Amino acid sequence: RINGERLWDSLMEMAKIGPGIAGGNNRQTLTDADAEGRALFQKWCEDAGCAMGLDTMGNMFATRAGSDPDALPVYVGSHLDTQPTGGKYDGVLGVLAGLELVRTLNDLDIKTKHPIVVTNWTNEEGTRFAPAMLASGVFAGLHDEAWAMDRTDRDGKRFGDELKRIGWQGDEPVGARKMKAFFELHIEQGPILEAEGKDIGVVTHGQGLEWTEVTITGKDAHTGSTPMPMRRNAGLGMARVLEKVDEIALAHGPSAVGAVGALEVFPNSRNVIPGKAVFTVDFRSPDIDVLAKMVAQMKEAAKAICDEMELDVSFEKVGGFDPVEFDAGCVSAIRSAAERLGYSHQDVISGAGHDACWINRVAPTAMVMCPCVDGLSHNEAEEITMDWARAGADVLLHAVVETAGV
Amino acid sequence: RINGERLWDSLMEMAKIGPGIAGGNNRQTLTDADAEGRALFQKWCEDAGCAMGLDTMGNMFATRAGSDPDALPVYVGSHLDTQPTGGKYDGVLGVLAGLELVRTLNDLDIKTKHPIVVTNWTNEEGTRFAPAMLASGVFAGLHDEAWAMDRTDRDGKRFGDELKRIGWQGDEPVGARKMKAFFELHIEQGPILEAEGKDIGVVTHGQGLEWTEVTITGKDAHTGSTPMPMRRNAGLGMARVLEKVDEIALAHGPSAVGAVGALEVFPNSRNVIPGKAVFTVDFRSPDIDVLAKMVAQMKEAAKAICDEMELDVSFEKVGGFDPVEFDAGCVSAIRSAAERLGYSHQDVISGAGHDACWINRVAPTAMVMCPCVDGLSHNEAEEITMDWARAGADVLLHAVVETAGV
Ligand SMILES: NC(=O)NCCC(=O)O
Ligand SMILES: NC(=O)NCCC(=O)O
Repeated sequence: RINGERLWDSLMEMAKIGPGIAGGNNRQTLTDADAEGRALFQKWCEDAGCAMGLDTMGNMFATRAGSDPDALPVYVGSHLDTQPTGGKYDGVLGVLAGLELVRTLNDLDIKTKHPIVVTNWTNEEGTRFAPAMLASGVFAGLHDEAWAMDRTDRDGKRFGDELKRIGWQGDEPVGARKMKAFFELHIEQGPILEAEGKDIGVVTHGQGLEWTEVTITGKDAHTGSTPMPMRRNAGLGMARVLEKVDEIALAHGPSAVGAVGALEVFPNSRNVIPGKAVFTVDFRSPDIDVLAKMVAQMKEAAKAICDEMELDVSFEKVGGFDPVEFDAGCVSAIRSAAERLGYSHQDVISGAGHDACWINRVAPTAMVMCPCVDGLSHNEAEEITMDWARAGADVLLHAVVETAGV
Repeated sequence: RINGERLWDSLMEMAKIGPGIAGGNNRQTLTDADAEGRALFQKWCEDAGCAMGLDTMGNMFATRAGSDPDALPVYVGSHLDTQPTGGKYDGVLGVLAGLELVRTLNDLDIKTKHPIVVTNWTNEEGTRFAPAMLASGVFAGLHDEAWAMDRTDRDGKRFGDELKRIGWQGDEPVGARKMKAFFELHIEQGPILEAEGKDIGVVTHGQGLEWTEVTITGKDAHTGSTPMPMRRNAGLGMARVLEKVDEIALAHGPSAVGAVGALEVFPNSRNVIPGKAVFTVDFRSPDIDVLAKMVAQMKEAAKAICDEMELDVSFEKVGGFDPVEFDAGCVSAIRSAAERLGYSHQDVISGAGHDACWINRVAPTAMVMCPCVDGLSHNEAEEITMDWARAGADVLLHAVVETAGV
C-alpha cells in the first residue's frame, strides 16, 4: 500500500506553485509557474533515485530502473498543468501518485523486472494552446510536431517559443520511447462514483470530443445611432448559436454534452455593435456518429442563423479525438487490483479527454479514477479526500507492479 | 468660409497618431497615443496664437482672445479620443473644425467680441473607462470628480493614475469656466443625412442612454464530464439575455435601440463551462419613459432566465444620460447659418451621446452634424467627404461668430 499522507503532502506542496484566487491553481502550461512545478517534480524524482528524461515537446520521463535492462518500461503519469481557475488534483494526482508508487517501492525495496517511468505530459489542458493533450498527441503520432510548435495563445505567443523560454525543451525525440503499458490515475471530474459510493472507477472507454472554433463576422457600428434594421450584430449571432449548441446536445440524450467555454467579441466596447465574434463549441459523446451529427447540426444551424442576420460564418476544427476503448488487459489489471485491495469499484466511461486516450494508440493503456466532491472539476473548489487519493494510488501501484513484474 | 483643404490635412495628420489595423484609429483615452494627439493639438493651437488651459480632468481649452476681456467665451470642440477600432472623424472633426475656425479668423484678421475657446474633452468614448463623456460630465457637475478618478479599465488601471501617467492632468479646477455658449460639430454616425441628401443636420435633441452592467454567476465546471442537468452555465444565461435585449428594443419601435457591445466570460477556457459572465447592455431612446421601461424589462427577463437556470444575476448602472433638448437660440443660430451659407439641412435627433449633451446643462448649447458614408461609425472604415467636413465647419464658424459678435 502507498503512503497516503506523503502523497497528500506532495499534492499540497505542489498546489503552492501557481496559486489561484479561490484556493485552487492557475498553473497554466508553459508559464513561469509551470516551470517551477516541473522543477519541484524533477527534484522529487531525483530524490527518489529516478533519472529524468525530457523530450522536444517538454514531456518529462522519470525512470526507476528495472532488474531487466532490456525490458520495456511500464509508464504511469498524467499532467501538472492546470486550468486558469483549476483545481489541485486534475492531472497532478496522476503524476504524484506515480511518484508515490516509486517512493513506496523504494521503501519496500522492491525491484520490478520492467523499469517504471513517471511521466508529466505537456499542455494537457489545452486552455492556452488548443488542442488539449497536445504533447501526448504528438508523442502518439496524432499531430505533427512542427504544427504543435506553431500553436499560439491569445497573445499570439507560440508554443515552441514559450517552451524554450521556460527552459523545458529537451533533446530527446518525441515519441521515440516504446512502452510495455501506460496507466493513468485521474479524478473522475464527474459525479457518478461519489453518487454510487464507489472508491474506484475502472475506465473502460473515453468519450469522443470535437472542438469547433466558430468565427462570425458582421460589421462594427455605433450602438446608438445605427438603426436596428441596419445592424449586423456578430455578438447576437453568437448568442443564437450558443442556444443551438445547448439544444443539440440535449436532443442527443443523456450521454451527449455540448457547451461553449471560450468566447470573445470584437472590438468589445460598450458602444460598438460587435463586428466579430469568435468562440469554441465543445461537443462530446461516447458514440462517434452522434458526435459527428452534433457538429454537423451546429454548423447547419449557425449558417442558417447567420444567413438570416446577414453575417458571415466560418468554422475551424481546433481539437478532437474519437471515442476510445482502453486495452482489455490493462483494464482487467486495474479491476483485479481494486478487487484484491478490497476497494469498491465500477466500470466508467471517461467524460473528459486524457493523455491516456492518445497513448492508448501506441501502447496498451488504461485508467483508474477516483471520485471528486460533487463531480466538480475545472473549478478552484475541486476537492477530493485523502482516502480517495490513497485508494486510487493503491490500485495504480498494484496494476503497475503486476504489469512490471517482480 | 473655412479652408477645407487645411482642415482635411489636419484630420489626416492627426489620424497618423494611434493608427488602427484597418485604416482607422486606436487612440483610446489616456494611452500614449492620446498624449501624442494632445501634444499635436496643443502645438497647432499655439501656432494659431491660442493660450492652452488644462483642467484636473485633462480637458484642454485653447483660447483665442476676444476684444472684450470681460465677455464670456464661446466654446467649440469635441474629443480626440477614439474607439479601439474607431474612425478618423468621430470627435476629431469637432475639435479640428474648432481649430480651423480660429485659423480662418486669423487669416481674415477678424476679432470677435467674445473670446473663442476650442476644447478637447477627455474620455468621450467610454470604452476604457465607463461612462462615456466622463470629463464633460464632471465639468457639468453630473459626476463627482473623485468618483471619476476612481474609474478603472479592464486591467484595473485607475483613470486618475493614467491621466497623471500620460502627463495631461492640469491644475485648473474642473467646471470653473463659465460659457456664453457651446457648439459641437460631429459626424452623424447614422444614415439619415446621407439618405436624405442633406449637407447639414441641425441637432435639436439627443436621445437618452442607459448602460447596465449585468453579472451572471453560475459555476465553473468541466465541459466533458459534467452532466447537462448539473450545469450552471453563465455563458448560456448571457446568450439568452442578449436575445431578450434585441427583442425588447425591437418591441419599442423604430427609434428605440438596444445591443450588447462588451461581454466576457470567465475563466474563458474551451473546456470550462463559464462560471461567470459580465456584459453591458446599451439601451437608447429619445423618450425617457421608454428608456426606463426597456431597462426594467431587461432586468425582469434576466432574473427569470437566471432563476430557471439556477444562476445568480446582479445589475449595476455604469452610464447613462437623459434625453436632451438643445438650446433654442443656439439651434436657430446653426439653422440660420446653414440657410445663409446655402447648405441643405434638416433637423435631427442625435442617436449617440456627445459632450454637448452634458454641457447643455450648464450653458446654452447646440450641435451641427455632417453626414458620414453609410451611416457607419465606431468602425475603422468610417468615412466622410471633404465637402461634408467643409460644410459642417462653415456652419460652425458662422454660428460661433454670430454668437461671439464682431
Ligand atoms: N482531464 C481534462 O480535464 N482534460 C482536458 C481535456 C478535456 O477537455 O477533456
Ligand atoms: N459620439 C459617440 O460615439 N459618443 C460615445 C458615447 C455614445 O456611446 O454615444
